[in-house]
Amino acid sequence: MRATLMFGAGDVRVEDVPDARLVEPTDALVAVNRAAICGSDLWPYKNMEPAESGRPVGHEAIGVVEAVGAEVRTIKAGDFVAMPFAYSDGTCDFCQDGLYTSCVHGGYFGTFEGGGGQAEAVRIPYADGTLCLLPGDPDEALVPSLVTLTDVMGTGHHAARGARVRPGSTVAVVGDGAVGLCGVIAARRLGAEQIIVLGRNPARLALAKEFGATGTVAERGDAAVDRVKEITGGHGAHSVLECVGLEDSLLTAIEIARPGGAVGRVGVPQDDAIPGSMSAFHKNVSVGGGVAPVRGYFDVLLPDVLEGRIQPGRVFDLSVGLDGVPDGYRAMNERTAIKVLVKP
Amino acid sequence: MRATLMFGAGDVRVEDVPDARLVEPTDALVAVNRAAICGSDLWPYKNMEPAESGRPVGHEAIGVVEAVGAEVRTIKAGDFVAMPFAYSDGTCDFCQDGLYTSCVHGGYFGTFEGGGGQAEAVRIPYADGTLCLLPGDPDEALVPSLVTLTDVMGTGHHAARGARVRPGSTVAVVGDGAVGLCGVIAARRLGAEQIIVLGRNPARLALAKEFGATGTVAERGDAAVDRVKEITGGHGAHSVLECVGLEDSLLTAIEIARPGGAVGRVGVPQDDAIPGSMSAFHKNVSVGGGVAPVRGYFDVLLPDVLEGRIQPGRVFDLSVGLDGVPDGYRAMNERTAIKVLVKP
Repeated sequence: MRATLMFGAGDVRVEDVPDARLVEPTDALVAVNRAAICGSDLWPYKNMEPAESGRPVGHEAIGVVEAVGAEVRTIKAGDFVAMPFAYSDGTCDFCQDGLYTSCVHGGYFGTFEGGGGQAEAVRIPYADGTLCLLPGDPDEALVPSLVTLTDVMGTGHHAARGARVRPGSTVAVVGDGAVGLCGVIAARRLGAEQIIVLGRNPARLALAKEFGATGTVAERGDAAVDRVKEITGGHGAHSVLECVGLEDSLLTAIEIARPGGAVGRVGVPQDDAIPGSMSAFHKNVSVGGGVAPVRGYFDVLLPDVLEGRIQPGRVFDLSVGLDGVPDGYRAMNERTAIKVLVKP
Repeated sequence: MRATLMFGAGDVRVEDVPDARLVEPTDALVAVNRAAICGSDLWPYKNMEPAESGRPVGHEAIGVVEAVGAEVRTIKAGDFVAMPFAYSDGTCDFCQDGLYTSCVHGGYFGTFEGGGGQAEAVRIPYADGTLCLLPGDPDEALVPSLVTLTDVMGTGHHAARGARVRPGSTVAVVGDGAVGLCGVIAARRLGAEQIIVLGRNPARLALAKEFGATGTVAERGDAAVDRVKEITGGHGAHSVLECVGLEDSLLTAIEIARPGGAVGRVGVPQDDAIPGSMSAFHKNVSVGGGVAPVRGYFDVLLPDVLEGRIQPGRVFDLSVGLDGVPDGYRAMNERTAIKVLVKP
C-alpha cells in the first residue's frame, strides 16, 4: 500500500510499504477515507534527525473498517469510524476515567508502533477501546469536521476545559493555528462571553471571528500582555488556552491570565520548564491541560458536528491526495495553509 | 513599642520603634496576643542583603483591637481578632471572589507598608476587609491553633484545594514543615484515604502520623518517586501538596502525581520556572495553588478548631517572648523547632 514516511527534517515521502494487516486479535484494519496533517507533525518536520527508516506519520484519520480480529466486540467490518490520535485499551483505570492518553497499554499513531494515518490503510490496536463509531453515510460537507474530532477539535476542547471556561468567562486563546481556532469554537460552545485571539495571520483571525472570537491581538510579549489587560478591564482573562507550546507563548499565557484564573495548555511543550512560576504563584493561576484524551470527547462534540452547531472542519483550507502530502507539509510549514486534509 | 526588625541575613533584632497607630480611617490597631515565626520568614533570614533600616517582620498574629478608625464598621475596640498574613479591602472583585491575596488595594504584613506582627502592636489596614473575628475568650489550649489560621493551616488547606483532594484520594505531601503538617490535616479533613509525607525529620513525621499521615518517604529525587509509586499501586498520587518551594521539590511533586492528578503548591517558589513541563503535559497533571487567601478559609476552618476536630496548633513546639524572637529564628533555621509561637 501507499503510506507517508518521514525520513528527517523537511523530508517526507509517500512510498510503497507492506500492507497494514491485523496482528493481534484485538486489532482492526481501517481503509483511510480522510487523514490530515497536524501542527504537531511540523515539530519533527522542522527538527527530525535524518534516519534510514522512514517513520510512519499521520495520527488523524477516519475511514471504513475492512476487518477485525477475533476478539473485537463492538466494531465490525463496514463500520465508518474515527481514529483518535492515541490508541487505548478502553479498560484500564485511566481509560475508565476518560484519560485515554494515559492508557497503560496505549500509544500514539504516527509512530513505528502505532503506524501512520497518512496512508491507504492503518492497523488499529485495541479497536474496541480506540475507535469511535461514526454515522454510516455522513453528508460529505460534514466529513472535514468529523476528521477534526480525531485531534484538533478535541484538543481545543481540552484546552478550554483545562482553562476552566465557564458561561460568561473572559477567554484568551494564544495561537491562531488549527488548534487555537478550535479552541475558539470550544470556548464559545462552553459559553464564553469574550474571546480574544492572539495571532497575526489575517485569514486565520478572520476565521476566528467567524467562530466567535470577539477580539484579536497582534502584539507579542509585554505589549500583548498590556493589550489583553486593556481589553479585559485591567486584569486579564479568566481562562487562557495555550495552543502553541513555545516557552514565550506559555509565558504570555500565564501573564495574561487574571488572578485566580487558569491556563489550559495543549501546545506540545518544546521546553522542559514552565516559565512565569512566580507570577503564576502570586496570582494563583493554575496551569493545566496536556495531551488531549480526545476519544473521551466524541460523545460531547459529535452531536454538535452532526447537527451543524459547530463547523471545525473549516480549519482545513487545503486538500491533497496521498501523493500531495509532501506539498501539504510544505504549505503548513510555510503557513500558507492552516491545515491540510488528505484524501488517499 | 517593641517590635522585631530584620536587618539582613541572620540579623533579627527586637528594638524600640514608634508606636503603631491609626493612619487611615479604615485602620484598626491591634495589641498582639500571640504572633508566630513562619517558614517563609526563613527565606529572607537566609538571603536578605544587609540594610540600614530594619524591615518589620511577622505576618501571623492574633490579638485584641485597641482602637478603630472612623470608617471601620464591623470591628470594634475590645474584639479578639486574627490578622491573616495579607490585608485586603474586602470589597474589590477579587475579595468578593474570596481571592483576598489579589486584592487591588491589598498587601502583606511583615513589610514596611504593612508593618510586622512580631511586635507589641500592629496597625491593620482595611480592618473590615482584613480582620477575622474570633470568640472573645477562647480556651488557652486553642490559642496556638487559632494562630495557625492566619497562615499555615489556611495555607495547608489551600494546597489541598489546589491539589483537588477529594474523599478517597491518594495524597502526597512534599515537605514536613509546619505547612506540610497542616497540609496533612487538610487532606485528612477533606477525606483523603492515603496520605504520604515526604520528609526526613523523625519528630515531624511522628506528628504527621498523628495528624493522619498513613505513610512517610525519606528518599529524595528519583528514589522518592519510585517509592511513592510503589506505595500507591504504581501510578502515583491523585493529589500532591507542594509545601517547600524549591525547584527539586516541585519536580518531585510533579513526578509523583498520577496521570490526571493535580499539584497544589504553596511553597513560595525560589525559582521562576516550574520544572517537569513535559512530564506534567504528557500526564495531564495540573499545577495549581499559590499564595493562600487564608482569610477566606476562616469560616471553613474555625469551627473545626473551636470544636477540637483539628489541632494545627500542635505544629508549635517552641514558645518565646518578644525578646526571644531572634532565638526563635535560629531554632527554626537550624530545624530544632518546627514553628515558633511568640508571646509579646
